[in-house]
Parts: sequence; structure tokens; C-alpha cells
Amino acid sequence: MSRILIGVIGPGETATTTNTRTAFALGAAIAQQGWGLLTGGRDAGVMAAASQGAHAANGLVVGILPSEDTAQMSPAVDIAICTGMGQGRNAINVLSSHVVIACGIGPGTLSEIALALKFGKPLILMGLPADLEAALVHLSSAPIAIAPTVTAAIAQTQNFLTREGSNG
Amino acid sequence: MSRILIGVIGPGETATTTNTRTAFALGAAIAQQGWGLLTGGRDAGVMAAASQGAHAANGLVVGILPSEDTAQMSPAVDIAICTGMGQGRNAINVLSSHVVIACGIGPGTLSEIALALKFGKPLILMGLPADLEAALVHLSSAPIAIAPTVTAAIAQTQNFLTREGSNG
Amino acid sequence: MSRILIGVIGPGETATTTNTRTAFALGAAIAQQGWGLLTGGRDAGVMAAASQGAHAANGLVVGILPSEDTAQMSPAVDIAICTGMGQGRNAINVLSSHVVIACGIGPGTLSEIALALKFGKPLILMGLPADLEAALVHLSSAPIAIAPTVTAAIAQTQNFLTREGSNG
Amino acid sequence: MSRILIGVIGPGETATTTNTRTAFALGAAIAQQGWGLLTGGRDAGVMAAASQGAHAANGLVVGILPSEDTAQMSPAVDIAICTGMGQGRNAINVLSSHVVIACGIGPGTLSEIALALKFGKPLILMGLPADLEAALVHLSSAPIAIAPTVTAAIAQTQNFLTREGSNG
Repeated sequence: MSRILIGVIGPGETATTTNTRTAFALGAAIAQQGWGLLTGGRDAGVMAAASQGAHAANGLVVGILPSEDTAQMSPAVDIAICTGMGQGRNAINVLSSHVVIACGIGPGTLSEIALALKFGKPLILMGLPADLEAALVHLSSAPIAIAPTVTAAIAQTQNFLTREGSNG
Repeated sequence: MSRILIGVIGPGETATTTNTRTAFALGAAIAQQGWGLLTGGRDAGVMAAASQGAHAANGLVVGILPSEDTAQMSPAVDIAICTGMGQGRNAINVLSSHVVIACGIGPGTLSEIALALKFGKPLILMGLPADLEAALVHLSSAPIAIAPTVTAAIAQTQNFLTREGSNG
Repeated sequence: MSRILIGVIGPGETATTTNTRTAFALGAAIAQQGWGLLTGGRDAGVMAAASQGAHAANGLVVGILPSEDTAQMSPAVDIAICTGMGQGRNAINVLSSHVVIACGIGPGTLSEIALALKFGKPLILMGLPADLEAALVHLSSAPIAIAPTVTAAIAQTQNFLTREGSNG
Repeated sequence: MSRILIGVIGPGETATTTNTRTAFALGAAIAQQGWGLLTGGRDAGVMAAASQGAHAANGLVVGILPSEDTAQMSPAVDIAICTGMGQGRNAINVLSSHVVIACGIGPGTLSEIALALKFGKPLILMGLPADLEAALVHLSSAPIAIAPTVTAAIAQTQNFLTREGSNG
């Protein structure tokens, strides 16, 4: 059995302070559960903050980089996967995560949210605008969870993992 | 100078009759302008209808397939690009289109819309739910055009191409 | 039925004069047969020469670029596919070609030759060192054709296409 | 600083008993050095044997799968990266490895060897036919090491890592 990886996605350079604070706490909470953290690997925004949070809590951080090398990687990444595929790597982020948690929004993040819906991957939304949240719930036949707090996001992740495990 | 390619994206198996009727007319109108049509290549929904429309109007149809072979390809495709990358090929659809027109919505289509926003690619929306349309406009710093008819979509495409050309 | 595409692969910046002369003649001969030419799209070496040859003979040239845009594209390319995947696009070059012809050798070309063997794609070698040629024939369970001239390469391509067609 | 990952590549279903014995010992030796092992992730041939060897020595195993899910994964993989890209993932295997060690040969392995040469990635060959070995050394401007034993391969990996580190 490979390690459970929880993907945390969100804006890079355009992340808000709220986004990065939530992402740091989320990374730490994921590590405390014994799960691995998976991010887009760059040293920016939600990716960097979640990685730092997990690292500070002695967690394992997997970074799926868009680039061919690690020049722009968060120093908190433990396992660096260099894809050289740019945004094409977004599908890999989603496919390799057992559960995907979006923390804030931007175009790249939205593409990953959409791919999670496409692949039927368990998805949790945090800090999205209410109109987009409603539109996504409206669009999806799969259940989307909305978590107001990190504690709620972790509880929901546990729910998703239990349900998935019982199918196995 | 390579051919101008207009990407038409939209749902496959879950397309509505309105989606496919619009897509057929759009494919034909694109061909009549002398532009090439680019789609996701499969023989389903909006991809298939747009390809048939362009083909019927003697246009050139480029299909960027998710699969390694052409087994599920629309017979109206002229140039088949077999990627073997699944949904990872969505980034290629967007990057290779001069203008992207979404015709209806589904998770895969939403991932391509989001990538168009990410890459700053000119984007036209047709037949999206009003709530999602508003949320996307709200999210994007780039201009998104909303076209109520095929005629409007073609006029908007011409606008985008002229603007792009004047930068060149 | 989509157009038949013949892939011509070979070194870029490190191509020899013999490589590019052969590639130009090959591109022209492919166009004269009514086949489309598929290359890696860049304005360098074998890719550029084959594209120019096909273009001069009024052929259709498909370029599968490693980049996100067309900045480094050969001006002889008609259909530009921007992958943004770097060398990851080599698999697409092979999968999208009905027959692959290698014209000269370099590391990138060798990766495409190897993928052609992997996918069981018909493969023709021109201008490879004798030791590598022998090693490849030794490695492969599939038939590899070695063509000393452009005329021989075209005849062999016809053979492969006929054989493939008879399976269809 | 992310973990050092050593890529072990080689044939899957067509691996020889010598290939898999060497791969098992190599995986174990890599783990004993404190390095992570990176493979193509499937439960076959060299990938599976190297993963088992590293796992038995309490090492960390990263598997870069061609598939969208883990159905065909080696049970010794700790970190599963699901790419859904088929052979397109070979570029990721090479880019994400600090040193690449080929253990036996097949078409897929040859494509990864060629990409290592293309990217200038340190490369060690074990158990290749003498004619192919010579042809590859002849082709490459970068140094290729040939290791007759696992002990020699580990010593050569240390050399490569020291040299790389001194550039940093």
C-alpha cells in the first residue's frame, strides 16, 4: 500500500494572506494525520505555505513541478517530481491525490478543481467566492464538500478516505 | 505563417441537443472564414458536431485525441494528433488554439476554460449557466466574451484575431 | 479517414549537411505522394529542412512543438501544435505518425526511435551510424527498414502503409 | 533540499532473471545509501524488483506510473505518482532522477536512456549488449559510465552526486 497523499491546490503569486494562513495550517494538520502532502511544488502562495506547514510538523511533502528542474521549488519539498510539462502537470496533481483540497482560487486552481470533478476525485473547497462555489456544486454530479475551517476539512478528508477504503 | 486554428470545446457524451446544434453551425462558420477547427477529436458531443459542421463546409479539422490511437475519433477529423495523455492533453488544445470557444459545459470543458484564462488565451463562452458565466467573469482579469449566437461568436473571434495580429 | 501523416525525425542544431539535404528531399517526396509531413516543428536541422521541402512541394506540414508558443517554429509549418511539454512531446510525434523516418541521429531522435519500437510503429532509418543501426535491429522484435536513398524510403513507406491498410 | 532520488530503469515483462536479480540488489544498495529509489512504478520486471529490494532495506520508493490509477502498481511503491500519460511519463522519470541507472534493455528503457543523454543527466549502464553500449558511448558527448557490478554502480553514483554537488 502506497502512502495516502492529500493534494492541496491554490493560487501561487496571487494568493491572499488568508489563503496562505489556511494553507499552512492545512499542511500541518495533514502531516499530523500521518498523510503525505502533495502540491504543485513551487515556492509561491498556497503551494509554499502548505509545504512549510507540513514540513514544520515533520510531514512528507511531494511537489509536482511544472518545470524541468528544481530552481523554483519550495525548500520544504521532500520529493521533487520534475515534469517539464507546465500546466499539463495539473492532471498529475489530481490523479496522484487521494483527496483534493482547494484553498483559494485562480485559473490554474480552477483547472485542477475541474479535473477533480472530471476524474470523480473527492474534492473539498475552502475560501472560494460564493458564486463560483454554487456554480461548481451545480455543475457536478459528484458530491463536493465545502469546509469552513481546517478542522472541518480534515474531518471531511477522513470521511472521504473511509468511504474510498470500504470500496477497496 | 501557420494556419489560424479556432478551438471549439464542450461536453462529449453529456452534450445537449442545443450544444451540438450550435457546435455544428459554429464548425461550419469557422470553415467558411477560412480558419482551421481544432477540437478534442473524439466522436462525441460538441467535438463531433463541430467537426462535422466544418467538414461539411470543406474546412480543415484538427483533432487532439486523449488516446494513443484513432479508434474513437470523429470521422470528420482531417489531422489526427494522438497524445496518449488523457485529460493532460487539454493544455495542448488551449495552447494550440488562437481563440477558444466553449460551447456548453462539463468538467473537462471547465478545465480547458480555466487553462485559457491561465494562459491569457482569448475566450468566448456560449451556452453556459448564468451563475458559472458570472463567476468566471468575476475570476478573470482577462476579458471574456459571451456570445449569444454563432454570428456573434464569429464577429468576436475576428475582433480577437485583429487585436492579436496588431501586437505581432 | 484522417490524412496520412509521415513523421520525419532527426537532429536539430547538430544536424549534418547530409542530414538536412536528405530531409529536404524527403519532405518534398512525402508531399508529392499526397501525404502530410509531421515533424517536431522547430526551425532547426532536420525538422526545418523536411518542412521546407514539403512546403516547396505544396505539401501540408504539421509541427508538434515542445514549447507553449510558436516563437521558435519553422515558418514552413502549416499546422502548429503547441504542447508546452518539452521532450515529453516526443511520444506524440511517434503516436501521430503512420510511419516514422529517422534522418540522422541525436539523443532526442534516439528517444523517438525507441518509442517507435515500443509502440510497434513502422520505422525507417536513414543515415545512422552502422553500429547503432545494428544494435537497434538486434534489439527490436519488429521489422526495421533501412533506406539508403529517399526513393527507397518512399517505396518502403508505401509498403508499410499497404500492409497496415490490409489489416484495417 | 529535497531527497536524492536515483532512477532505476529497465525492461518490464521482458526482463531476464539476471536483470531482476541485479535490480533487487541495486534497489537495496540505493536504500542503504539513504537515497530514494525512483522507478516506472509497475509491478513487472526491473521496476518491481528494484522496488522490492529498496523496500526490503527500508528505503523510500517513488513510482511514476504510466496509468491514471494504481491498479498495476508494485506493492513495494511508497509514493505513487499517477500520470495517465503512458510512455510520455518517461521524460518525468529521467528529469526527476539525480542519476539514472539502466539495468537491462528494451525499447522503453532505450527511450529513457536517450532522454538522459538529451537532458545531460548522469547515466550508468548495466547489462546492456556490448554493441548497443558502444553505440551509445559513440553517440554521447556526455560521459556514460558502465558498471559491471552493483558495487561499481553505487560508487559511480556517489561520484556523479559529488560532482553535481560541487557545482551547486
